[in-house]
Amino acid sequence: MSGLGFELLATDGAARRGRLHTGRGTIDTPAFMPVGTAATVKAMAPDAVAATGTRIILANTYHLMLRPGAEIIERLGGLHKFMNWPGPILTDSGGFQVMSLAKLGNIGEDGVVFQSHIDGSRHQLTAEKSLRIQRALGADISMAFDECTPFPAKKDDAARSMRLSMRWAERSKAAFEERPGFGLFGINQGGVYEDLRAESADALKAIGFDGYALGGLAVGEGRETMFGILGVAAPLFPAGRPRYLMGVGKPEDLVGAVERGIDMFDCVMPTRSGRTGQAFTRFGPVNLRNARHAADPRPLDEACACPACRNHGRAYLNHLVQAKEILASMLLTWHNLHYYQDLMAAMRRAIAEGTFAAFTAAFAEQQAAGDIEER
Amino acid sequence: MSGLGFELLATDGAARRGRLHTGRGTIDTPAFMPVGTAATVKAMAPDAVAATGTRIILANTYHLMLRPGAEIIERLGGLHKFMNWPGPILTDSGGFQVMSLAKLGNIGEDGVVFQSHIDGSRHQLTAEKSLRIQRALGADISMAFDECTPFPAKKDDAARSMRLSMRWAERSKAAFEERPGFGLFGINQGGVYEDLRAESADALKAIGFDGYALGGLAVGEGRETMFGILGVAAPLFPAGRPRYLMGVGKPEDLVGAVERGIDMFDCVMPTRSGRTGQAFTRFGPVNLRNARHAADPRPLDEACACPACRNHGRAYLNHLVQAKEILASMLLTWHNLHYYQDLMAAMRRAIAEGTFAAFTAAFAEQQAAGDIEER
Repeated sequence: MSGLGFELLATDGAARRGRLHTGRGTIDTPAFMPVGTAATVKAMAPDAVAATGTRIILANTYHLMLRPGAEIIERLGGLHKFMNWPGPILTDSGGFQVMSLAKLGNIGEDGVVFQSHIDGSRHQLTAEKSLRIQRALGADISMAFDECTPFPAKKDDAARSMRLSMRWAERSKAAFEERPGFGLFGINQGGVYEDLRAESADALKAIGFDGYALGGLAVGEGRETMFGILGVAAPLFPAGRPRYLMGVGKPEDLVGAVERGIDMFDCVMPTRSGRTGQAFTRFGPVNLRNARHAADPRPLDEACACPACRNHGRAYLNHLVQAKEILASMLLTWHNLHYYQDLMAAMRRAIAEGTFAAFTAAFAEQQAAGDIEER
Repeated sequence: MSGLGFELLATDGAARRGRLHTGRGTIDTPAFMPVGTAATVKAMAPDAVAATGTRIILANTYHLMLRPGAEIIERLGGLHKFMNWPGPILTDSGGFQVMSLAKLGNIGEDGVVFQSHIDGSRHQLTAEKSLRIQRALGADISMAFDECTPFPAKKDDAARSMRLSMRWAERSKAAFEERPGFGLFGINQGGVYEDLRAESADALKAIGFDGYALGGLAVGEGRETMFGILGVAAPLFPAGRPRYLMGVGKPEDLVGAVERGIDMFDCVMPTRSGRTGQAFTRFGPVNLRNARHAADPRPLDEACACPACRNHGRAYLNHLVQAKEILASMLLTWHNLHYYQDLMAAMRRAIAEGTFAAFTAAFAEQQAAGDIEER
């Protein structure tokens, strides 16, 4: 039945090492997907994105439907050709962005009416329209259309929102054209309420998806609450299907979520932070804007093989950030994605070798050690 | 006497094909030097700059003395190491930028007092200080400290300004530490007055430099006037030394100046234009912001081997420019530098083959043909 093959290669506790097969290539999981909002991973050429170890990227239905428009991208041969990314692409459904970025009109049973944040033009998104756009873009993995339940939400509101998303999930499944090598993921909602998460998981499994995403997390509930939900919700999904935690997160979030059985992630954290001078390293985050780097010839991380670390010292990176040079965004974005993909690769190895508990302990210790200046 | 070797390989009319030898490598002339103002060619990694065919870049004494400071760069091993550019670097003297960017205090016989455009701090530049900074940066080619005569300037003012620059040129020569593989260029001034240009050339030749630059042009006098000055001034310099036209220019300026005997150029045109959506092509400039490209799958130039042309269509470039994506600046800067370096290579071949007149005729015809949409 499935358009995407998934192999579970190894488990270590709840952590899983797998392989997701798409028509455009295989993705080793746990996997991190850089965000290519407007058909570009910001400040990175596609070959640089691939060089970081990235195998799949995410693109945003909401942004692309507004600019340049899904019809134009379809006419030009799809998103892969448009942006010259030959690997798999996952598109979100637009549900989250429309609620966080657009001026909202009516949210009804049928979908959402909204005004573009770019030019104020009026648009509608429904499950059917979202899936049609994702198909036009050429998504390898499409997401069901959903309402991201705000946080905090009273239980009644969370339940109402989740059940609307489940009806939209059913319509998304009906609207999705099944083809080998392409897949559709459902999105679990229910806020911080474990019984609602379970009800949502049952509804999604009854519909049947190629993968299962956890939505509505990392929206302000805090890491411990999120980890609690993951611990309860992840095991609710079929072991033979990938599990995707949407919009997460910092390195320690990824490690904790993998520990709880998550296989896929996306987040703007490494790219956005790269554009504001923040680098993620083995020893925790480093703010390159800080004057303490101004005369420091050492690389950001002497063990990192990215161009920022291989070719330049901290003093230069500090200078570029201070001078607001585009190269600062380029180098630090590259570094951050490289670090994220190295972290995913290290987790995949640890799970395969059955040493994930030792890995998480060493990771926490190193992160707590702080940057070299403090050691 | 010279720290830099220069071979004149061929001439075709006044056009010259040569080779300038520095301690960090050989530069085929006519050569274009991209501008790396603040120790970065904006929106380009150093390996990308080299991939465009660039052999030498320019860096700005004024910007670097203010941020991060010449002392820091010197302590870190010099500009080449700081920015990871192993090839030759020419540094300007700071004279031009201090007058165009800083809040000027007194300009006297000794030099210039000014306030930083970054933080308002007070600084002084003299010939001796400029040469000391250029040495600290590690410049392969240093420039004499000069006053860029404003345009328009009355003849008396142009003469007074030029003669001040000639006294500073003498002090620059005295302050320059001669070392094999490193060189100092003098700067010809005199505004649009041919006799002042000749007086200035005589003064510079009497001092003796590794190369001779033409300053104070492309400041509003118009192309024909500039070409007129070049026609008169270029032959005033020794045939065995390189001639550098500062701050020029558009592709047609480069061709016309090479035709008049110029060997070296620098200009922000290709990099700055790349950041505003303007591309230079065989068929003239193309504004990628224009909506006529929005659904055009064709490359910017199907004959160009740069990543923007090889990997993407005009529709994508238009989208990136519209969405103000950093990748737009990256791709269009790369394209423009690639085009500029291709143009220089084509001129070098034509001069070597004795077909420069045919080249300039074909160049003018192609540029006049306009972009593919108009053909």
